[in-house]
Amino acid sequence: MSDVNRQWIFTRAPDGAVTPDIFERREAPVPDVGPGEVLVRTRLLSLDPANRAWMRGRTYREQVMPGDVMHGFTIGEVVASNASGFEAGDLVEGMNGWQDYASVKPGSLTKRDAGRDPLHMIGVLSITGLTAYHGLFDIGRPVPGDTVLVSAAAGAVGTIVGQLARLAGCRTVGIAGGADKCDWLVRELGFDAAVDYKAADFRKSLRAACPSGVDIYFDNVGGQILDAALAAMKIGGRVVCCGAVANYDVGTVPYSSPALPGVLVAKRLRMEGFIVLDYAARRAEAEQRLAGWVESGAVRAIVDVVDGLEQAPAALVRLLDGGNRGKMAVRIS
Amino acid sequence: MSDVNRQWIFTRAPDGAVTPDIFERREAPVPDVGPGEVLVRTRLLSLDPANRAWMRGRTYREQVMPGDVMHGFTIGEVVASNASGFEAGDLVEGMNGWQDYASVKPGSLTKRDAGRDPLHMIGVLSITGLTAYHGLFDIGRPVPGDTVLVSAAAGAVGTIVGQLARLAGCRTVGIAGGADKCDWLVRELGFDAAVDYKAADFRKSLRAACPSGVDIYFDNVGGQILDAALAAMKIGGRVVCCGAVANYDVGTVPYSSPALPGVLVAKRLRMEGFIVLDYAARRAEAEQRLAGWVESGAVRAIVDVVDGLEQAPAALVRLLDGGNRGKMAVRIS
Repeated sequence: MSDVNRQWIFTRAPDGAVTPDIFERREAPVPDVGPGEVLVRTRLLSLDPANRAWMRGRTYREQVMPGDVMHGFTIGEVVASNASGFEAGDLVEGMNGWQDYASVKPGSLTKRDAGRDPLHMIGVLSITGLTAYHGLFDIGRPVPGDTVLVSAAAGAVGTIVGQLARLAGCRTVGIAGGADKCDWLVRELGFDAAVDYKAADFRKSLRAACPSGVDIYFDNVGGQILDAALAAMKIGGRVVCCGAVANYDVGTVPYSSPALPGVLVAKRLRMEGFIVLDYAARRAEAEQRLAGWVESGAVRAIVDVVDGLEQAPAALVRLLDGGNRGKMAVRIS
Repeated sequence: MSDVNRQWIFTRAPDGAVTPDIFERREAPVPDVGPGEVLVRTRLLSLDPANRAWMRGRTYREQVMPGDVMHGFTIGEVVASNASGFEAGDLVEGMNGWQDYASVKPGSLTKRDAGRDPLHMIGVLSITGLTAYHGLFDIGRPVPGDTVLVSAAAGAVGTIVGQLARLAGCRTVGIAGGADKCDWLVRELGFDAAVDYKAADFRKSLRAACPSGVDIYFDNVGGQILDAALAAMKIGGRVVCCGAVANYDVGTVPYSSPALPGVLVAKRLRMEGFIVLDYAARRAEAEQRLAGWVESGAVRAIVDVVDGLEQAPAALVRLLDGGNRGKMAVRIS
C-alpha cells in the first residue's frame, strides 16, 4: 500500500464548458482509519454528466465546493476497517471522490458481490443501469409497440434504456451526436433507428424515424432536443426527465422549450422527473434482473475505461463533450 | 321566434391582447333545419380563456379561422328538430358559437336535465366544473393535508378547484390579481390563503403562504407564475397543466420557465396536462357529485353573467384581462 493519497481538488466552477485546469492535483497522506470508519482504496471512479450539475449548485445532493476533493461515485476495496461488517478485501461502492484513499463511515458504503465484474458494478449493475431501469419502467411505463425515444443514446444510461425498451417490445429510436455514433447504435446495439442531432435536418429526421409519433421520450439532455422531442410526442405520451446536460454549461438563463407547458395540455403529456436513489428499496430486484440480462447477452454493457487517476479531468471533459460510448470510468491501480 | 340570426364573426387573430374590433357583427337568416339536424336557439354563451388559445392555432381542437362565426360553448333550447331523440323545448349543450341560432347534427349536442339551473349547466356542472374535478382528482391526486396551490384562483375553474381541494382535506392557496380578489377568495370561498401576483413581493408572499411547500400546483396560466410555483414545489409534487393563458397573447416566443426540465428531476415532480373531453365516459358520475356539493352548499358556484349577445366581445376582453370572478357567461334573450 502506497503512503501517498493522490487527489484532484475542485478549485472553481467553470464559466462555460469544464476545462481540466479547474482541477488541481494534490498529494496528501493516506488518512488514518478513524474510530468506526472504513479505509477504502479506490479501484474505479465513475464519471457522469451529473458531475457537471453538482458544480452549478444544489441538486438532489450537495454542491461540490472549491477546495473539495472532486466528488465522484466509486468502486473500492477495503484496506482497513474499524467498523463491524467490513473487512480488508471487501469490494464496496461509495461516493469517495477523485482520490486513492478515503476513510469513511460505513453508512456511506454498500458491499458488492466480489463475483461480479467491477466494470459492471460501476455501470449496468449500479446507478447507471438502475437509472435506466426505473426511469423506463416506473416513469415511462412502456407498452409493447410503443415508440421509445432516448437522447444521449450512446451514453451510459442511453445505451441501456434503448436495449431495455427493445426487450419490452418497443420500437427504439436514439438521438446521438454524429453519424458514427448513430450507425453504431443501430448496428451494434439493436436500435431501430438513430438520429444525429448535429445534422441540419435533425427535426425532419426525427419525425421520419418516429412516423407514428413518440410514446416515451427518455430525456437526458433538456434544451433544444427536448423541444424537438415534444413536437414529436404522441397524444398521451410520457417524458421521463432524467437529466438536462444541455443546460449544465449555460452561465445565465438556460434555454427552455417555449412549447411548455401548453404542449402538455394539448397532447395530454406527462413529464416526470426522478432520482434513482428514491428506488433504493427495490435495488436488489432491479439489479438481479439487469444481471440476468447481461449474463444472457440480452443487454450489452458498454464501458469506456480510461486508465490512471491522472486522466480523470481530461476524461470528464471528453464525456461532457460527448466523446464517450457507454459508461465512462477511470481505472486506478 | 325572430327571423334574424345575429352573429359575431371572427375577422383576424389579434397581434397581442384581444380587442373588440377583431369581431364583426353580422345578421344572417335563421338557418333551415337540415335533414337529420336540430335547430337550437342559444340561451347562454360560455366565455373561456381557451377561446384565446383557439385563435393562435390548433390546440386540442380546431383553430378558429377568420370568417368563422366565433366558436363558443353554449347552452341552448331546441326550436325545431329533424333528429330523433330531440324535440322543441329540450335544453342542450353544444359548441354553437356566438350566434342566436345554429342548425347542427345531433352528435354535437348533449341533452341537459331541464330541472337544473342553466347557469350551473354552463359552469360547475359542465366543462368548467369537470375540468376542476378531473384535473384535481385524476391528475393532482390530493391527499388530506396536502397544500394545493391554484392560479387564476378567482376564475371559473380556480374557484372550484380551491373548494374541491378544501373538501378533500387540503390546505388551499390561491393566486389572483389584486388585493380585492385575494380577500374575496379567503373571505367568501374559504381559501386558507391567497397571494396577489401583481404585488412586488409576490414570490416571497407565495413562499410565506405555503410554508411547507406545495404538493399540488393547478396551473391555469403558465409563464412567470408557473416559474414561481415550481420554485415553491415540494419534493414529489404534482403540477396539473390545465392552461397557459399567460402565453396566449405573446406574438413570438413565449416565456418558458428556465427551471424546466431540471427542477422536475431535482424535486421528482410530475407535470401533466389533460383535456377534460378525455373524461367524457365518466361525466355522469362527476357531474352527480358536483351537483350534490352545489346543492348542499359545500361548493359555491360563482357566475359572472353579462346580458345580451352584443356584449360578448367586451366581456371576452374583460375575462382575458382578469376582470371576472367565477364563470363568465353571456345570457341571450
